[in-house]
Amino acid sequence: METNQCSNPVNSGFSAPSKVSRKTTPANTIVNVNGLLIGGSEIVVIAGPCAVESREQLFETARSVKTAGANMLRGGAFKPRSSPYSFQGLGEEGLKLLDQVRTETGLPIVTEVMDTRQVDLVASYTDILQVGSRNMQNFPLLKEAGMSGKPILLKRGMMSTIEEFLLAAEYILNQGNEQVILCERGIRTFETSTRNTLDLSAVPMLKRLTHLPVIVDPSHGTGLRWMVPPMAKAAIACGADGLIMEVHYNPETALCDGHQSLDLHEYNQLMTDLKKISLAIGREILSPLPSDIQS
Amino acid sequence: METNQCSNPVNSGFSAPSKVSRKTTPANTIVNVNGLLIGGSEIVVIAGPCAVESREQLFETARSVKTAGANMLRGGAFKPRSSPYSFQGLGEEGLKLLDQVRTETGLPIVTEVMDTRQVDLVASYTDILQVGSRNMQNFPLLKEAGMSGKPILLKRGMMSTIEEFLLAAEYILNQGNEQVILCERGIRTFETSTRNTLDLSAVPMLKRLTHLPVIVDPSHGTGLRWMVPPMAKAAIACGADGLIMEVHYNPETALCDGHQSLDLHEYNQLMTDLKKISLAIGREILSPLPSDIQS
Amino acid sequence: METNQCSNPVNSGFSAPSKVSRKTTPANTIVNVNGLLIGGSEIVVIAGPCAVESREQLFETARSVKTAGANMLRGGAFKPRSSPYSFQGLGEEGLKLLDQVRTETGLPIVTEVMDTRQVDLVASYTDILQVGSRNMQNFPLLKEAGMSGKPILLKRGMMSTIEEFLLAAEYILNQGNEQVILCERGIRTFETSTRNTLDLSAVPMLKRLTHLPVIVDPSHGTGLRWMVPPMAKAAIACGADGLIMEVHYNPETALCDGHQSLDLHEYNQLMTDLKKISLAIGREILSPLPSDIQS
Amino acid sequence: METNQCSNPVNSGFSAPSKVSRKTTPANTIVNVNGLLIGGSEIVVIAGPCAVESREQLFETARSVKTAGANMLRGGAFKPRSSPYSFQGLGEEGLKLLDQVRTETGLPIVTEVMDTRQVDLVASYTDILQVGSRNMQNFPLLKEAGMSGKPILLKRGMMSTIEEFLLAAEYILNQGNEQVILCERGIRTFETSTRNTLDLSAVPMLKRLTHLPVIVDPSHGTGLRWMVPPMAKAAIACGADGLIMEVHYNPETALCDGHQSLDLHEYNQLMTDLKKISLAIGREILSPLPSDIQS
Repeated sequence: METNQCSNPVNSGFSAPSKVSRKTTPANTIVNVNGLLIGGSEIVVIAGPCAVESREQLFETARSVKTAGANMLRGGAFKPRSSPYSFQGLGEEGLKLLDQVRTETGLPIVTEVMDTRQVDLVASYTDILQVGSRNMQNFPLLKEAGMSGKPILLKRGMMSTIEEFLLAAEYILNQGNEQVILCERGIRTFETSTRNTLDLSAVPMLKRLTHLPVIVDPSHGTGLRWMVPPMAKAAIACGADGLIMEVHYNPETALCDGHQSLDLHEYNQLMTDLKKISLAIGREILSPLPSDIQS
Repeated sequence: METNQCSNPVNSGFSAPSKVSRKTTPANTIVNVNGLLIGGSEIVVIAGPCAVESREQLFETARSVKTAGANMLRGGAFKPRSSPYSFQGLGEEGLKLLDQVRTETGLPIVTEVMDTRQVDLVASYTDILQVGSRNMQNFPLLKEAGMSGKPILLKRGMMSTIEEFLLAAEYILNQGNEQVILCERGIRTFETSTRNTLDLSAVPMLKRLTHLPVIVDPSHGTGLRWMVPPMAKAAIACGADGLIMEVHYNPETALCDGHQSLDLHEYNQLMTDLKKISLAIGREILSPLPSDIQS
Repeated sequence: METNQCSNPVNSGFSAPSKVSRKTTPANTIVNVNGLLIGGSEIVVIAGPCAVESREQLFETARSVKTAGANMLRGGAFKPRSSPYSFQGLGEEGLKLLDQVRTETGLPIVTEVMDTRQVDLVASYTDILQVGSRNMQNFPLLKEAGMSGKPILLKRGMMSTIEEFLLAAEYILNQGNEQVILCERGIRTFETSTRNTLDLSAVPMLKRLTHLPVIVDPSHGTGLRWMVPPMAKAAIACGADGLIMEVHYNPETALCDGHQSLDLHEYNQLMTDLKKISLAIGREILSPLPSDIQS
Repeated sequence: METNQCSNPVNSGFSAPSKVSRKTTPANTIVNVNGLLIGGSEIVVIAGPCAVESREQLFETARSVKTAGANMLRGGAFKPRSSPYSFQGLGEEGLKLLDQVRTETGLPIVTEVMDTRQVDLVASYTDILQVGSRNMQNFPLLKEAGMSGKPILLKRGMMSTIEEFLLAAEYILNQGNEQVILCERGIRTFETSTRNTLDLSAVPMLKRLTHLPVIVDPSHGTGLRWMVPPMAKAAIACGADGLIMEVHYNPETALCDGHQSLDLHEYNQLMTDLKKISLAIGREILSPLPSDIQS
C-alpha cells in the first residue's frame, strides 16, 4: 500500500562513493593530529575565535578555552566574506600568531585555506587544513588540500546534499589522503529565525554511510550565541564525534561573528554540561592536554 | 563592522504574538491531560501506530508501549494522505477502538482531526486533539479545535516558519484555550536523504519565545526507523518537553509509515537510553501509569 | 557516463495520477464558466482586489478591470490570514457584494472557500470556487469542493511538489468533477528579495503531465507590484492558459496585499503588452465580454 | 494594518553594493566582446556544448549554431563535476580546440575557469571568462578573474541570494573590471521534478538593482531538454539581455548533460520563436555575424 511519502521520497538509491563508503571500509577512520585522535570513542572539542584579530585576542581566548578543556584551537587567518568590504583576515600574519599560540599552549591549530596557491603556505603553519562551506565544491582546492598530506576538516556546503558532501570528501581521499573530518554546519532553508538550519540528522546519516569522523559546528549552524549550548548537547546526543565552536574573550568587540560566539564563562559552563551528556551515551570528552605540554 | 550574515539575516525583528509570548506569560504553561502534566520538568513520551488498523494491532502495540513506559497513546483514525487512493483511516470505528484501548490501558489518547465538522466527534473520544502539519494554517479548524476545550497538539507545517507556527497557536489561544502543545516534526528542504529535515533548533527557539510546551516527532522528522533513536535523544538534549513516536507491533505489515515505525524491541531500548539522557540534563522521563489504573 | 546531476536528480520515476494524467486523457480539458472557456487557445485574465473591502472599492475596481479587458473578477470574502489579528474578510456580506458586482458587470466571480461547512454557501454566490495555497492538502475541503459541481481554482501549496499538486487535483476529479484549473503562485525558498519564488517551470511541466488548464498568479508569486508585469509576460511566454492578478483602485489604502496590487493604470498598460506577447506565441487574450451583457 | 507577509517578508532593507548598484551608475553597462555588445537593446544568444569533447563534436555544433543565429559559443574545457570519477574536461587541449573553432567561425568563446592558477591560461584563449555556480563565492578566483581584464560571465550560485550574487560581482568590479555579465541558472529548492528551480524573477530584480547585463541559462535551470524552449521564451519576456544554452550535435552521446542539451533542429526552431518574442517586447535578437568574418 502506498505511503504518505510519495512525493518526498527518501533518496534510497543513494550509496556513498567507494573510498569514503563504510561498505568498503567498515571500521571508523581515526584522524590522528599530533597524537590527538578524532573519530574514536572520545569526543573532541575545537574552540576559538572566528578570525584571528590580534595577539591579545588570540592568546587570551586560547588560554581560556584550554583551561576549560578544549582539545584544539580554531581561528581564521584568511576569511571568506560575502562582501569585499568586510574584514578579510590578517593573512600570513594571522598564521604566524596561530603558530606562536600553539607553541605556548600546545593546542593543535585548525585554520581555513581558500586558494590553491596558498595550500602549501597554510599547511606549513597549521595542524588541520579547513576547507570551508563555500569551497566544498571547489574541486581544485579539494585536490590540492588532499595532496598536502595534512588532515582536512571539510565543512558541508550550505546547500549541499549528503551525497554531494561525500563526493567532495571522495575527491580528497582520491588523492591518497584518508585523514578527513566531516563537519555539519547548517544548511540554507526558508526559515529565517536562525542563520542556517542545523541539520543534525546529517550526523547519524553520515556515520552510517561513511567511516570518516563527523563533527558539528553549532555556531554557524544557528548564528545565535544562546542557541549554541543546547545544539552542542544535541549534537553529542545524536552521535557526533566532536564540536567546533566560536569562542571569543569579548564577543561584543569581535570583528566577525561576535553575535554567535560564546564568551569564556558560557564556554566553561557548556563544557561541564557536555561531559554529562557524553557519559549518558557511553562516551567521554577527550581529556585536555596536560599542562606540562606548555613550554 | 559588517559580518558574514549580510544576506541570510536572523529575523531579529520578530516577536511572538501576545497570547503565546513568553514576554506576556513568563512561566511555562503546563498542559494537564487527566492529571498527566506536559511542560513541567518531566518529559512525556507519546507512542503508538501511525494509523489505527485493527483491534489486534492497536491493543498489542498499546500494551507494549505502556509496559515500556509510554505516557500516552497516539493513533490516527482520520488520515491525511497525499493520494486519494491511499488508506484513509478507519474513521469513527478507529475512534471507538481508541476509546476501548484507553479503558483497558489507562493511556490517554492523541488523535488527529482534519475537518471542522468532525471536531465535536473526535473530541468526544480523545484526550488530546491533534491538528496536523497540513492543517497548521487551516484557520477555521484552529478556531473550532480551540473552542472544543480539549488540549491541542499542534504540529508545525512542513513549510511554516517559527513565526507562522506561533501565529497558528495564537489562533487557538485566542479562543480562550491555553492548553496547546507545539510539535516540531521536520521541515521541507532540498535534502532528500531524509524524508524531512528535523529542525531541532526550533526547540530552544520556541522555548525562548513562548510559554507553551514543545515536543518533537522524530518519526516524521526523519522518515527512517533507524534514525529515530539518535534524533529522539538529541531532541531531549536540546530541551524538548516530550516526544511523539510511531511504534508498530509489526512494522513490515503497517498500512502506513511502517518504514519509519520502531518495533517494540527498538522502542524498549530507546526508552532505556532516553532515561539516561534526561538525567544528564537534570530532568526525568514522566513515570508510567501505575498498573492498577488498568481495569 | 555519469552526469552532473548525481545528487539533484530529476524525479523521473514520477507520473501523474490517473484521472488528471494526460496519458489517460490526452486532450486539454476546457473549463466552461458561463460560456467563457479556460484551457483552450485563448488566454484568460482574472483580475480584482485581494479582499472585498467595500462596495465602492469592489465596484470601482471591477468596472475598471472590465474596461481594460479582464475576463473574470477575483476578490476574497473569507481570507486566510497568518495572524488572528489581521483583517479576516467581510464574510457573507462580501459574497453578496460579489454577486451584485457580477450582475452589474457580467464578470464571472472567483472567490475562496476555506471551510467545508461553507462550501455550499460560497458556491451559491460564486462562479469558480478557489481552494487556496494553505488548503491545497486540506483533503476534506478538496472533496467537498469537488462535490459542489462548481469549477475549482486550485492553487499550489507554497511548499508542495508538482506531484503533490496533481494528487490534490486528483482528489477533486475523484469526486466526479473535472472542471479544475491549476494555479502556480510561487513556492517558498531561501530567497528573500521576493515574497515567494514564482516557479514558472511548473507551467510547462504541468501542461505536459496533465490535461487541466494552468494559470499563474504573479501577484502572490512575487509580492512586488512592479514585478507583476514582467512575470505576467513570462508566464504567457512559457505557456500559461491565463493569469490571476491583484488589482486595486487605490493600492495605498488596501486592507491587504496593497504592496503587490497593480493600480488601474498599470493594469491597463500590462493588458496592452500581454496582447503582443500572446500573438507572438500564436495565442490571443480572451475577448472581453460585450458591454450588452451588463444589465 | 498587518498583511499576509508577516513571516515571509520581502528583504526590503537590502540595497546593492556601491559599484554594481544602479543608484551609483544609472545607465546600463554594455559589455563589449570584440565589438559584440551585451546589455544594450539587442538580445545575445550563446550556444554550444556543455563540454568540449572532440574536434568533430565542437566544430559540427559550432557551425550549426552559428548558421541558426548564435552570437557566441560556449564550451567547457575544465569541468566542475560532483564526482571525481566523472569526465573532468579536456583541459588545455579543449582550450586549443576552442581557439581553432573561433578562428574558423568567428564566434567569440565563453569558457569556465575553476582555479586561480589557471586564470591567465584560460584568459589567453577565451573571449569571456566564466565563473561557475560552485565558485560564485570563491573570492580569490573572483579577484583573479577580475584582474585578468577579460569580460566575466558570473553564474549565480545554486544556493545564493540575489544580495550575495551582487556582492560577488562587486568583488570583480572592485578589481577595476566593470565588464561583468550576470547569469541566472536555477536555484536549489525542495522541488525535484526539475534539476533546479529557474528563478526568473531574478531577472527583473537584478535589472532594477544593478546596471550590469543579465542573461539566463535555461539548460541548467531546468535540466530537461524539452523545457528549454518555453523557459528561454519566458526569460526574454521578463527582460533578460541574453541566453546561454547547451546545444549538442548528438545529445544522446554527450559526455555530460546530454539530457538537457538541445539538438540542432530544436535549436533552430527555438531561434525562430525567440525572434517573435523579442519583437513583442520591442527588442531584437542580436544579428549573427556576417559570414565573411570567417577565415
